[in-house]
Amino acid sequence: MLNYKELYKQTLLEDVIPFWEKNSIDVKNGGYFTCLSKTGEVYDTDKFMWLQGRQAWIFAMLYNKVEKNEKWLEIAKNGIDFIIENGMDAEGNFYFSTTEEGNALVQPYNIFSDCFAAMAFSQYAKATGDEKIKRLAIQTYHHIINKKDNPKGTYEKSTGIRPLKSFALPMILSNLVLELEDVLEKEEVERTIDFAIHEVMDVFLDKESCLIYEFVKLDGSLEDSFNGRLLNPGHGIEAMWFMIDIGVRRNDKALIEKATQTILTILNYSWDKKYGGLFYFMDAKGYPTQQLEWDQKLWWVHLESLVALAKAYEQNKNQDIKKWYHKIHNYSWSHFSDPENGEWYGYLNRRGEVLLDLKGGKWKGCFHVPRAMFQCWKTFEKIEANEN
Amino acid sequence: MLNYKELYKQTLLEDVIPFWEKNSIDVKNGGYFTCLSKTGEVYDTDKFMWLQGRQAWIFAMLYNKVEKNEKWLEIAKNGIDFIIENGMDAEGNFYFSTTEEGNALVQPYNIFSDCFAAMAFSQYAKATGDEKIKRLAIQTYHHIINKKDNPKGTYEKSTGIRPLKSFALPMILSNLVLELEDVLEKEEVERTIDFAIHEVMDVFLDKESCLIYEFVKLDGSLEDSFNGRLLNPGHGIEAMWFMIDIGVRRNDKALIEKATQTILTILNYSWDKKYGGLFYFMDAKGYPTQQLEWDQKLWWVHLESLVALAKAYEQNKNQDIKKWYHKIHNYSWSHFSDPENGEWYGYLNRRGEVLLDLKGGKWKGCFHVPRAMFQCWKTFEKIEANEN
Repeated sequence: MLNYKELYKQTLLEDVIPFWEKNSIDVKNGGYFTCLSKTGEVYDTDKFMWLQGRQAWIFAMLYNKVEKNEKWLEIAKNGIDFIIENGMDAEGNFYFSTTEEGNALVQPYNIFSDCFAAMAFSQYAKATGDEKIKRLAIQTYHHIINKKDNPKGTYEKSTGIRPLKSFALPMILSNLVLELEDVLEKEEVERTIDFAIHEVMDVFLDKESCLIYEFVKLDGSLEDSFNGRLLNPGHGIEAMWFMIDIGVRRNDKALIEKATQTILTILNYSWDKKYGGLFYFMDAKGYPTQQLEWDQKLWWVHLESLVALAKAYEQNKNQDIKKWYHKIHNYSWSHFSDPENGEWYGYLNRRGEVLLDLKGGKWKGCFHVPRAMFQCWKTFEKIEANEN
Repeated sequence: MLNYKELYKQTLLEDVIPFWEKNSIDVKNGGYFTCLSKTGEVYDTDKFMWLQGRQAWIFAMLYNKVEKNEKWLEIAKNGIDFIIENGMDAEGNFYFSTTEEGNALVQPYNIFSDCFAAMAFSQYAKATGDEKIKRLAIQTYHHIINKKDNPKGTYEKSTGIRPLKSFALPMILSNLVLELEDVLEKEEVERTIDFAIHEVMDVFLDKESCLIYEFVKLDGSLEDSFNGRLLNPGHGIEAMWFMIDIGVRRNDKALIEKATQTILTILNYSWDKKYGGLFYFMDAKGYPTQQLEWDQKLWWVHLESLVALAKAYEQNKNQDIKKWYHKIHNYSWSHFSDPENGEWYGYLNRRGEVLLDLKGGKWKGCFHVPRAMFQCWKTFEKIEANEN
């Protein structure tokens, strides 16, 4: 029995969302503080645009999918307004960060700020029917597509002599396009889904190892370099639940089965047999990684694994998936969860001890924890309904 | 008694230098491989220009200061030729990295490639009397000075709305200018030393905490932001032995004493009382750092501390300095040194266990270990001579 529906629902609605409602709202300048201590105090006031987009998306999504709670819509609006007023440059690119007042601090070098703004605009337009925001979602989406082959623009430091393409882009597009389904042309949606499935499952998923590489050459072959050998297990597993969502939408059982097997392969490869938990980065040849944080255990890697395993289990009742679900569940809830102060810790060392006791920072905001809680809640609801 | 002269001399000449002589030379394309495994095998062939400069500098310096060994000069030439042929763009900036054949991979976004090239050119010109290389050293030095206020050029991602200046620049200038003393105008040398002393000891050394900050505002005041709160204890301590060298050169006893007290303050602040060793990064207010690797124990931090402590002790026989020397000595030699395979490990976790078993990579080359061995050998030689 996987009887966790209530656990995820309660944690989302009585712990995680109240934590962000109480601590993160900047009532003076708009937008959200994301640098929150263990107990929720703001320890730094800079605003990271991609985390602004992520939090606005979460609250608009909850309004659309859980309850027409006006407080949630107001919180979403607080972020949407801040992003529109302060987050964009004249060309429609999104800054990486601003001061608390909204003055641009770091230039738009990272396309993921744009991706999460587009997702937030789309959910918010759905919640409110606001046509202006809807057009902004569409415009931002096309802007992302236009710059997808050179996402860093003039901030790209590579000379281009040995070009690699990044898994992050097709991965996020596979999620973004479903998020924007309501506002895009049907043909555009299907074309982008085809592109994402092909890139993720045929190009970045290596046929020999059945692992997902973080970077491959433009022709799809592997490169023996630091980036070419890099594995990011959490990325691969997260992408597999995007693929399962697409598989369900298209009733593509083969895609769901391939994603399920890939989840198992990645988990087997990247589980730390000595101390438990999933590694953050690995080198496909076992060489030293450039990333000094390679052996740390990160909240999002484990939460995305729980979502992927729950979704896979719902589809095929695979018993290996069920075993892995229990293993990751026990590790995650006993190591990351902080029922005393609320929300989850983000960063553990290899042994599973808290490395940084923040609840939010530059890279952790109101996103992976509540999204995973919502996804697991809804998936276990379906699993339980089927079992009764 | 601090009777370590022979230990450092032997380790330098019978362990560390032979390790790099045997494993790092690219006889086919020139230059050096720096990505070396625990036992010295090349695991990646990319060439990082700042590490090419550092290694060429080490071998030319040994030729100039230890022994007129033609093999060392040849190894230095191997790097100098590679840098000149492949490392510079048309404006005289130095690429960050190239392929093993010398094709530019990553653009010149980092001024430290230029700094170590200048140091290598200067030592090599001194060793050979080569006028062309000497002019190149001078030209590179002036190029560094010209771009010191915007070292990243077009790759700077900050908007400039909240500008900070970086400690790394005056710190490296204080060493670079002494290295280039033979090739620069006397006036230029003294002016740059004055600038460096002022910036390091009056601006970045905070009067209240007596700690060195990694970034301050342009007016020298502190900023309450992630970068503004950042402490890099190894940087501060390394800079203090540059200050002691300058103090000796100018017979400035007050400068030497202030540097000595600063070494003690930083060591007290950044020693890990639970597991031993010095932290890599700290936040001056005790907030979570952005650097996930903050609690790791790095080879260079400990080696530069040994050099700083030995030099301070030579000057003033301070008993607190002596106690700290023993503490860092025992930690370093028992944790980083690898007498079985040669050279030192670079990266330990907080507990002092090996985190990455490489002997060289993108950020560790033939530099801190041999330079510290040389500096400690020569300093203990003087200390022992004075004691007899």
